[in-house]
Amino acid sequence: MCRQGLVVLAGGVGAARFLGGLVRVAPPETVTAVVNTGDDIELHGLTVCPDLDIIVYTLAGIVDADRAWGIGGDTWNGLSMLEKLGHDTWFRLGDRDLAVHIHRTERLRQGHTLEQVTEEIRTALGVPIRVVPMTNAPVRTHIETDDGVLPFQEYFVQRGARDTVRRVIFRGIEQAAPAPSALEAIRSARAVLIAPSNPFVSIGPILSLPGMRDAVARTRAPVAAVSPIIAGSAVKGPAARMLESLGHDVSVLGVARLYRDLVDVMVMDRQDRALQPGVEELGMRAVVADTLLATPEKKRRLAKTVLAALEGVT
Amino acid sequence: MCRQGLVVLAGGVGAARFLGGLVRVAPPETVTAVVNTGDDIELHGLTVCPDLDIIVYTLAGIVDADRAWGIGGDTWNGLSMLEKLGHDTWFRLGDRDLAVHIHRTERLRQGHTLEQVTEEIRTALGVPIRVVPMTNAPVRTHIETDDGVLPFQEYFVQRGARDTVRRVIFRGIEQAAPAPSALEAIRSARAVLIAPSNPFVSIGPILSLPGMRDAVARTRAPVAAVSPIIAGSAVKGPAARMLESLGHDVSVLGVARLYRDLVDVMVMDRQDRALQPGVEELGMRAVVADTLLATPEKKRRLAKTVLAALEGVT
Repeated sequence: MCRQGLVVLAGGVGAARFLGGLVRVAPPETVTAVVNTGDDIELHGLTVCPDLDIIVYTLAGIVDADRAWGIGGDTWNGLSMLEKLGHDTWFRLGDRDLAVHIHRTERLRQGHTLEQVTEEIRTALGVPIRVVPMTNAPVRTHIETDDGVLPFQEYFVQRGARDTVRRVIFRGIEQAAPAPSALEAIRSARAVLIAPSNPFVSIGPILSLPGMRDAVARTRAPVAAVSPIIAGSAVKGPAARMLESLGHDVSVLGVARLYRDLVDVMVMDRQDRALQPGVEELGMRAVVADTLLATPEKKRRLAKTVLAALEGVT
Repeated sequence: MCRQGLVVLAGGVGAARFLGGLVRVAPPETVTAVVNTGDDIELHGLTVCPDLDIIVYTLAGIVDADRAWGIGGDTWNGLSMLEKLGHDTWFRLGDRDLAVHIHRTERLRQGHTLEQVTEEIRTALGVPIRVVPMTNAPVRTHIETDDGVLPFQEYFVQRGARDTVRRVIFRGIEQAAPAPSALEAIRSARAVLIAPSNPFVSIGPILSLPGMRDAVARTRAPVAAVSPIIAGSAVKGPAARMLESLGHDVSVLGVARLYRDLVDVMVMDRQDRALQPGVEELGMRAVVADTLLATPEKKRRLAKTVLAALEGVT
């Protein structure tokens, strides 16, 4: 088997940025993003897949740069009509975005798998890497808070991720087989990368699929993870507060421990250099880099650093 | 039973204009439009009901005045994304319009009837009359042409109604019961009006529903029809060419014969005055009026004339 594929386990915004750098240093056709679908949601009768869409829109070059999700320059006329018709519109879907969900929903109803439909969408929008949902089955992340159990997007978008997270639940995960093309990509990969995404609600669902954590643990390819935590904070989103409320170190060390059985190389920010020995004590190589993906050049450089670090692993 | 309702059997544009006048001379809450659904179509997995929407948008005051369908000032971003995703887009759906179809499709899938969903939509958009689909069952008009049998919108929109119509077929009509509220409205009406709509593809499906033609024929309320043909032409659409290719007089006389068993009063344009005796020979009263609904004032006046003519029928 010719091992040349790069597999990236991916959530939304952080992963999309990381992939944006990776496609500039590796042949895009060798890259497969295996993407979280635990935050998918049915809205207005349409199947919305926020992480898949963020990655597709970002790599298609049409993402709204300010929001880092949705489509740049989109309009909101459909949503305002839905509001008039009595729909909840706290999840903001632009008109072009809605069309993607209309397409996806129609194709799923026709009996196509989410894998097939995602392949159609990424191809139509000119995304040069393969984008694969983690599973074709419906998995729905729920968040246990002090106000009860909430569907993920209610916790995340509607309530602004302000609740303290007591537990993360992946409904439907026991019956959800990993997408065949995801498993196949991992099996034939020359390296597996865990994007700087939330370890609980982005990477967590992927690794919790039956057989998935094992597939990553057993691959002969080296595995690297990029810490989403820099100097005790998440670049974006609630990862830091989740680490804390779920009883972990709010640092790259806390993240590294979550990936202990999986990861050969942990990529951490320069600001966390002091934690390097602690990470290495876990039995992984700790590579220090500039992990704040603020510019295209920084994204490119981080990707290059990660790939170089993997070269050294046998 | 207090008979105070006005029931209008309605197609799309011609009926919408007629109703626009009627609501200015009769209490809107007493008016029920029973609307053709034979030209409904599934597009992008959404249920689109063109005649219902034309009437709702027109009476809500949001119709695109130039096109006489769709929503004024609508944008086309969803459709252009659907096109990018490989969808046929010859049926032009704006972003606000798409939202109405998203809503309708979701509610139908949840098990609501088209009657219920239409009532929701017209209420949300502030339409002051009741708007009732002719049936809750799927009836799909097909047109037999020299190029074979075409679904109605392919004949009408995609091919621009240029084919010669050899036969009009209402698929599903044998199993389609009239909507309960439509029958109830007819049963308790003080008058039934047949709008100046295409007698074959707009009024035809309504009257072809099992029991519907009988219900109109047997009502004790007077029935009036407004001719959609003026001086041998249709104001809009292919009615004149259909009368010809289907072997009827291309005139108010041809229309009157189609409604012979139903109509007490035939309202015809001044330009057709010479045909008045011919229409009266069919056993109906022929009322001459200005039927070209070019201005709000003309619409109002025609509605007034029709109601006045009905007063004289016992």
